[in-house]
Amino acid sequence: MQHRYQIIQADWTVTVNADFEVLHDFSVVVEDNRIQTLIANDQVMELPCYTQAEIISLPGCALMPGLVNSHTHASMSLFRGLADDLPLMQWLTDHIWPAEARWVDAEFTADGFRLAAAEMIRSGTTCLSDMFYCPDEAARCAQQIGMRSVIGLIVLDFPSVWAQNADEYLHKALAVHDEIRELPLVSSAFAPHAPYTVSDEPLRQIAMYSSELDVPVHMHVHETAAEVAEAQQKTGQRPLERLDQLNLLNPNLIAVHMTELDEFEIERVAEAGVNIAHCPESNLKLASGICPVSTLLDRGVNVCLGTDGAASNNDLDLLGEMRTAAMLAKGSSGNASACNARQAIEMATINGARALGMADQIGSIEPGKLADLIALDLTSLNTQPLYDPVAQIAYAASSRQVSHVWIDGVPQLRDFEFCQLDSDEIIATAAGWANKIKS
Amino acid sequence: MQHRYQIIQADWTVTVNADFEVLHDFSVVVEDNRIQTLIANDQVMELPCYTQAEIISLPGCALMPGLVNSHTHASMSLFRGLADDLPLMQWLTDHIWPAEARWVDAEFTADGFRLAAAEMIRSGTTCLSDMFYCPDEAARCAQQIGMRSVIGLIVLDFPSVWAQNADEYLHKALAVHDEIRELPLVSSAFAPHAPYTVSDEPLRQIAMYSSELDVPVHMHVHETAAEVAEAQQKTGQRPLERLDQLNLLNPNLIAVHMTELDEFEIERVAEAGVNIAHCPESNLKLASGICPVSTLLDRGVNVCLGTDGAASNNDLDLLGEMRTAAMLAKGSSGNASACNARQAIEMATINGARALGMADQIGSIEPGKLADLIALDLTSLNTQPLYDPVAQIAYAASSRQVSHVWIDGVPQLRDFEFCQLDSDEIIATAAGWANKIKS
Repeated sequence: MQHRYQIIQADWTVTVNADFEVLHDFSVVVEDNRIQTLIANDQVMELPCYTQAEIISLPGCALMPGLVNSHTHASMSLFRGLADDLPLMQWLTDHIWPAEARWVDAEFTADGFRLAAAEMIRSGTTCLSDMFYCPDEAARCAQQIGMRSVIGLIVLDFPSVWAQNADEYLHKALAVHDEIRELPLVSSAFAPHAPYTVSDEPLRQIAMYSSELDVPVHMHVHETAAEVAEAQQKTGQRPLERLDQLNLLNPNLIAVHMTELDEFEIERVAEAGVNIAHCPESNLKLASGICPVSTLLDRGVNVCLGTDGAASNNDLDLLGEMRTAAMLAKGSSGNASACNARQAIEMATINGARALGMADQIGSIEPGKLADLIALDLTSLNTQPLYDPVAQIAYAASSRQVSHVWIDGVPQLRDFEFCQLDSDEIIATAAGWANKIKS
Repeated sequence: MQHRYQIIQADWTVTVNADFEVLHDFSVVVEDNRIQTLIANDQVMELPCYTQAEIISLPGCALMPGLVNSHTHASMSLFRGLADDLPLMQWLTDHIWPAEARWVDAEFTADGFRLAAAEMIRSGTTCLSDMFYCPDEAARCAQQIGMRSVIGLIVLDFPSVWAQNADEYLHKALAVHDEIRELPLVSSAFAPHAPYTVSDEPLRQIAMYSSELDVPVHMHVHETAAEVAEAQQKTGQRPLERLDQLNLLNPNLIAVHMTELDEFEIERVAEAGVNIAHCPESNLKLASGICPVSTLLDRGVNVCLGTDGAASNNDLDLLGEMRTAAMLAKGSSGNASACNARQAIEMATINGARALGMADQIGSIEPGKLADLIALDLTSLNTQPLYDPVAQIAYAASSRQVSHVWIDGVPQLRDFEFCQLDSDEIIATAAGWANKIKS
């Protein structure tokens, strides 16, 4: 078989390897869908593949691993701006859940997923971890688009368009999990919605299946102080303690939000190797609380980043989320050195890969890893002059400066233009949904 | 004299008038540098000026008043990314003040101002309120570029490139104030740096001149808890109390930052009509504290927004600042309804105009006001579908969607391209400075 070679030459290659090396005037050689090697520009001509390779020259650009969005509800992009300036439970019960009950079906899921995936690719995200109804549809859609995705297999106690009760959700989860094995870009995670919407028995089964199949568990946990207080009142237990008893606190868990954590719980999640998906913009906008990121990073907890859905953010811009996360960690801890530029970039890349069990495949630019790469054009006014590309990426760059995106070696964005997706058609379809929903 | 007429037809006109009217399919008629009228598209053809007017059709766009950046140090854009992840006093004393002492002169001020103004125009800001050395140079530069500016006449106790002592600063301030009267786009403000860098006598004189000349006073106040504590230890007084005794608490004062405010002080600034310039991103990044915006808005305090300088932000994107301000007000107050989309947009426009004493001239789209206008293209993936243009502007739009900018009726940005500025030359000059400073 003929191999395809691409040689990408950016001014800076921000590897996000263990030493966080930033290479100047280096070439990243991609063979088919994998990174073959990193080599100085003045040596790359000696490689045997050089003559057959496509050379992509990116002056003024930084190449970095694609961003990993560790928590989103992609299809909810169709509800963006439907209801704002409301607290979480009122927003959910009066607006989002009724709108979901009325509108969500397989077609909604697919059309919303496409809009979200396009927005994410445009802004530098190359892997997303989703939680929504009709996960079979989302999985097929992700593969068809070429978006690396971890599809959450939703589980709830109550009925929805997808299933009627916990048994049916679980049954369908296992069926979709099997179906997804056939899709090279897609993998699955169990996605019990939250401690307050899933009872013990399905959670016990999920813990068992997750351990047996080595599949992540993607769950909202301790999103607000009210959630924790209500659980304590009803059961005498904080939700995290209950999850611990149900054997869910382990490195397969991606606990989303985690704004309410006492000292004991921080110790426990650190010890158990629980991953935390921090969604600062959604947490701020819904006034849900603030995840103690600085402390968690100090304790060695793997903190990654998510945008949450576009109905509570209202964008799916992980680069912007990274900047907010760094600033909020400093501001909320009172320590301007907390969550520095390097840590912010790690949260948005390798930490996300680790949470999803994919740190050996994505999240950094290293030989043998999959070619999920993005280039940021740092020649804009707002990233000039340039003393340090890492600081510019973390604190000054806009996601609109993402000029190139590769997922699995496939160019998805080239010189700011989509190579595969038809964004006009995606937007027109989304507008059609809004017209129906508004009326 | 021949008049110039421009008729701007966006899908939505977000007026930011007292009723916050959002008009659909309206024309904004601009005669020379002023808004003449707002009229429905189907009636505009009847206006006498229609036949001679240039028609600017903006389908999918929202037209709104240009953004007002109420606190910046424009020329510090040349230090963007020079030092990050450091607390305020260490950042100032070990990095910024030495760099200023070594590098700042008239040429630095002008080149940095141009870079900042270009970045601001590109991101929708049409008026800035500056504080830096060599204000005469900044003023000339602002007029030459066409950027509406309120130039801060810096006053300090200690020597700098600009003056040797408070007397000389004051003397030069009055001279530059007179010089600026000749520049139609530029006005001036007294800019005593901070309570801890300016002693009583010059502050007393500034209070007097401000009142006599009706000129704003632009000052960092209560930026951090440490600043307040140190003043209390040295003098037994909180800085705000001292400023009150010096007759500075009145509607001419733009107090920047104000992260530390007790209940009594909030009452006092509300009663005195003090304006507060909130700089959320700089405050978060330097871990300076959080201004209690939600409470201040409830008490009727005029809160406006600033980016601060690019060395502590690190961008000059007021649209992004507005989004951060809204989210942080919700998150820090624990109330998701705090600082809603309308209030956020008002902070970024009319409240800034009010703080600068220009609410009768700019800050909203109303007949008779100056034509400082921007258009946001809402057809991007991240602002679709569209239920409510106001929510999209506040929570989803990127400043890169600013497609058109007019300042004083003059087109500065058209279809995303500069009409007057040479951004390549500005960037090359900035890069030249960075090369010198790095070496």
